[in-house]
Amino acid sequence: MSSGGFRARQISIVGLGLMGGSLALALRPYAEAVIGVDPNPFARAAAVERGIVDSATDNLRDGVHVSDVVILAAPVRAIIDLVEKRIGSYLRSNTLLIDIGSTKADICTAMGSLPIGIQAVGGHPMTGKETSGIEASDATLYQNRPFVLCPTRRTTPAARLRALALVEALGAVAIEMDAQRHDRVVAAISHLPYILSAALVATVAAEGRSDDAVWRLAAGGFRDMSRLAAQDLSMMGDILSTNTQAVATLLALFRMQLAMIEAMLIDRDQQKLTELLRPAREARLAWIKQLEGKR
Amino acid sequence: MSSGGFRARQISIVGLGLMGGSLALALRPYAEAVIGVDPNPFARAAAVERGIVDSATDNLRDGVHVSDVVILAAPVRAIIDLVEKRIGSYLRSNTLLIDIGSTKADICTAMGSLPIGIQAVGGHPMTGKETSGIEASDATLYQNRPFVLCPTRRTTPAARLRALALVEALGAVAIEMDAQRHDRVVAAISHLPYILSAALVATVAAEGRSDDAVWRLAAGGFRDMSRLAAQDLSMMGDILSTNTQAVATLLALFRMQLAMIEAMLIDRDQQKLTELLRPAREARLAWIKQLEGKR
Repeated sequence: MSSGGFRARQISIVGLGLMGGSLALALRPYAEAVIGVDPNPFARAAAVERGIVDSATDNLRDGVHVSDVVILAAPVRAIIDLVEKRIGSYLRSNTLLIDIGSTKADICTAMGSLPIGIQAVGGHPMTGKETSGIEASDATLYQNRPFVLCPTRRTTPAARLRALALVEALGAVAIEMDAQRHDRVVAAISHLPYILSAALVATVAAEGRSDDAVWRLAAGGFRDMSRLAAQDLSMMGDILSTNTQAVATLLALFRMQLAMIEAMLIDRDQQKLTELLRPAREARLAWIKQLEGKR
Repeated sequence: MSSGGFRARQISIVGLGLMGGSLALALRPYAEAVIGVDPNPFARAAAVERGIVDSATDNLRDGVHVSDVVILAAPVRAIIDLVEKRIGSYLRSNTLLIDIGSTKADICTAMGSLPIGIQAVGGHPMTGKETSGIEASDATLYQNRPFVLCPTRRTTPAARLRALALVEALGAVAIEMDAQRHDRVVAAISHLPYILSAALVATVAAEGRSDDAVWRLAAGGFRDMSRLAAQDLSMMGDILSTNTQAVATLLALFRMQLAMIEAMLIDRDQQKLTELLRPAREARLAWIKQLEGKR
């Protein structure tokens, strides 16, 4: 499929942050107009002044009701609220509705109860930046990055093809999977790592209360391992609370791995300990090699 | 104290890797000669050809017996072996002996049994690079980085001052503490993070055996959190096996923090969960701010 396959008359981006602004920039060449919807007047003004969108409104109905493509670029709970309570009655039949929330099962379930005729597909682009906000918008943010698409009860074959074309227009790599599978995968690679980072920082901070040398000596390794702990709490709260079961399962599996390492450590058998640690080292090296080969 | 305070007639660097080579480069202006000692002929040849040392030998006695400063830049177990079994009889009285091993209690205990007259101080510079080997040597590697100094039973007041002057000559920041305290601190900020990284990669690799999408979707967060898992196993085995008690204690404290987060997660109280996670976020942000303020 070529990206020439994606055309829209009017695209609405609901949520003018980094992700939404970057979507708007990347998709403008494919649409006659891009409309931003956001309750924040500063985000709206910045989006219009910078030419990221053609116009912006805080009125959801006005912003979406004549669009043929609507993208929900809001936090997970806001997306669920929009889908469950508000947006269904505003959309025309045959509108393509995609979200970009970080968990998919609850959102896709909610999409399944939208009025028949709405073409709804769950989405999760695996990209981001350290800086947030509409000012950091970047048309290349999605390029060459995975963009997961999850079917809903409102995903017709035509909806699926339009969503694939949209992802291709972004320059992203579409990966289709069901929402439960997606949520399990991101529990492993994203939500578990966040929790470990937060628990590590909490452990070091507790040490720091009796010996502040921990903060003076902490260096590159701790810097990497503590970065995720600083993520936005409201966003992470939404994510964890809409993926509780998968995250709890991964935590249990993680504890098993940790317990095996601890047993070998306490047993003071250095040979067995390093043999136990070897597969993790090799898996990481193989993944990085593959990742860098793709660039 | 000014770095003019550090002068040496002949400095021996035992171990010609990244750390030893960088020490040699940084200290050459302060010594009449710098001698490298390493069993590896390629490392010796590279060190001499690149002008990192004046000469190099694989004979420990030849390499150290006329030096007034000897630095052990080898893996932890190699340092312990050198100190316990070999180097004591080769050194002149009043030689300053420093090591740069990553754990300090076992090494400092071993140093305490060296012949009286040897001035022995434990050291641990908190620096490094992704690349290893003598070819990556960098005279600025130690600049503005913490360099822990730990007293031993063979640390006279004069030895302490010479060690402080050496650290200042490197451009590093001396931090003095006893070996037990050092080992507890690095268990928290370095060894626990390594184990968490390895256990995380092991968990994700186990998931990957049933669903390879984990590897295709893994992105920046997992990249940071998995980096330490790729560290050299022989080095990490030495470190963990010489710091078992502190690491086991920190693992137990970490599990408590993890269990609290897990309890709030499973309880599905998003408000309480984010409040529990808030102090870790704030501690990380405060530390990074302080770290970047120092630059």
